[in-house]
Amino acid sequence: MNIILLSKEDLTDPGKRAVITGRRHKYIREFIKPAAGDELCVGLISGKIGTGRVIAIDDRSVEMEVLLDQDPPHPVSGTLILAMPRPIVFNRLLGHITALGIKKIVLVHSKRVEKSYWKSPVLKDENIKAQFVLGLEQAKDTIMPEVLLRMRFKPFVEDELPGIIKGTHAFVAHPKDATDVLPRGIKGAFTLVIGPEGGFLPDEVEALKRAGCRCVSLGERILRVETAVVAALSRLSYL
Amino acid sequence: MNIILLSKEDLTDPGKRAVITGRRHKYIREFIKPAAGDELCVGLISGKIGTGRVIAIDDRSVEMEVLLDQDPPHPVSGTLILAMPRPIVFNRLLGHITALGIKKIVLVHSKRVEKSYWKSPVLKDENIKAQFVLGLEQAKDTIMPEVLLRMRFKPFVEDELPGIIKGTHAFVAHPKDATDVLPRGIKGAFTLVIGPEGGFLPDEVEALKRAGCRCVSLGERILRVETAVVAALSRLSYL
Repeated sequence: MNIILLSKEDLTDPGKRAVITGRRHKYIREFIKPAAGDELCVGLISGKIGTGRVIAIDDRSVEMEVLLDQDPPHPVSGTLILAMPRPIVFNRLLGHITALGIKKIVLVHSKRVEKSYWKSPVLKDENIKAQFVLGLEQAKDTIMPEVLLRMRFKPFVEDELPGIIKGTHAFVAHPKDATDVLPRGIKGAFTLVIGPEGGFLPDEVEALKRAGCRCVSLGERILRVETAVVAALSRLSYL
Repeated sequence: MNIILLSKEDLTDPGKRAVITGRRHKYIREFIKPAAGDELCVGLISGKIGTGRVIAIDDRSVEMEVLLDQDPPHPVSGTLILAMPRPIVFNRLLGHITALGIKKIVLVHSKRVEKSYWKSPVLKDENIKAQFVLGLEQAKDTIMPEVLLRMRFKPFVEDELPGIIKGTHAFVAHPKDATDVLPRGIKGAFTLVIGPEGGFLPDEVEALKRAGCRCVSLGERILRVETAVVAALSRLSYL
């Protein structure tokens, strides 16, 4: 927890004081162990970051005087479109993706995605939000990503994807048909599509190409989805 | 399993035939389901890759005629020096690192590393080798990485690290003292040092600097070790 995230409900006295309990209080008490007067790094969800000067701490809550005066890190101008991975991998990926500064994720179906994945509890709003919070706490960020679930590949790729791609550099990591490697550190906005283990099927790749994606490779080796997502986002991002 | 890895013991008839059993046979039988005459991608551990034409397959073994005529992917000319992570994270990292083509890993102690980590069964030779094999099978590679365990930070950094760094670009991911960001796609050899969760302590950073490392940042966000290793290797590698 590199930042203590506050919600609006934590703030009292027109935004100048915060009283927090529960998981964050426990973490502060056990790991940071501050004395009155110490300053902690705090941030308002979807808002600014700054400092929280501890006024009082006991075994139930921490009270802080809060000054929120700095912008959170720049969001990465990229959308990640990901064939729904195995639920356990998806859960870890939420943390990686949030920490890397991506703010928009679309989960899509593909013929190689097991249909049961869509029924997993990891896709419940409360789980996704909890993973995002952990990722933001790690990355010292406050801006929640958003996730869209698209369980029908064709309507998404034909009707919605062209609008997402418009004005961005768009790539699908698909080494088989790649004419080039994924570029490094691009300054503009990007759209990155990553398929399931085993890759998209040929007709899916054709549909992605028609929507405006270029097939690229990530090098000579075939990466698992979890490695590929982090490696590709890191390589592509300018930050 | 994107490649079937063979050991010398699998080869008969001066290297032209292979008979395999056990885990690989099970995978081939259940997932690839080849008929006689079908060709599989095979590779000799530490050697070339090529094709295995199935001669016979039954419920105990697969016999193949083997042609090994292609070089494995180029190894990445980089050494990763990693403060020993939590064992479960380390195990996943072995797969990521192998798939990314790194061939030399040094695990070091640091004051923030829990001493119990060094007693974990994940550090046993047979586990490390098994994880490497899984990583190579994923990446279609044959060259085994090597791991060195260095449970004493100071002697390693003072006596051994300067020799590893010599002739390479050397970086320690340590945003606090960074004057620059980690460069992208460098063509020469590199040495990359990644600290424990929470980072190296100031005297450890000083020792790393004296050995020849430059402090760099991976961007505005603070990454977990697992994310940081993949993100940094991907960003730095030229492949």
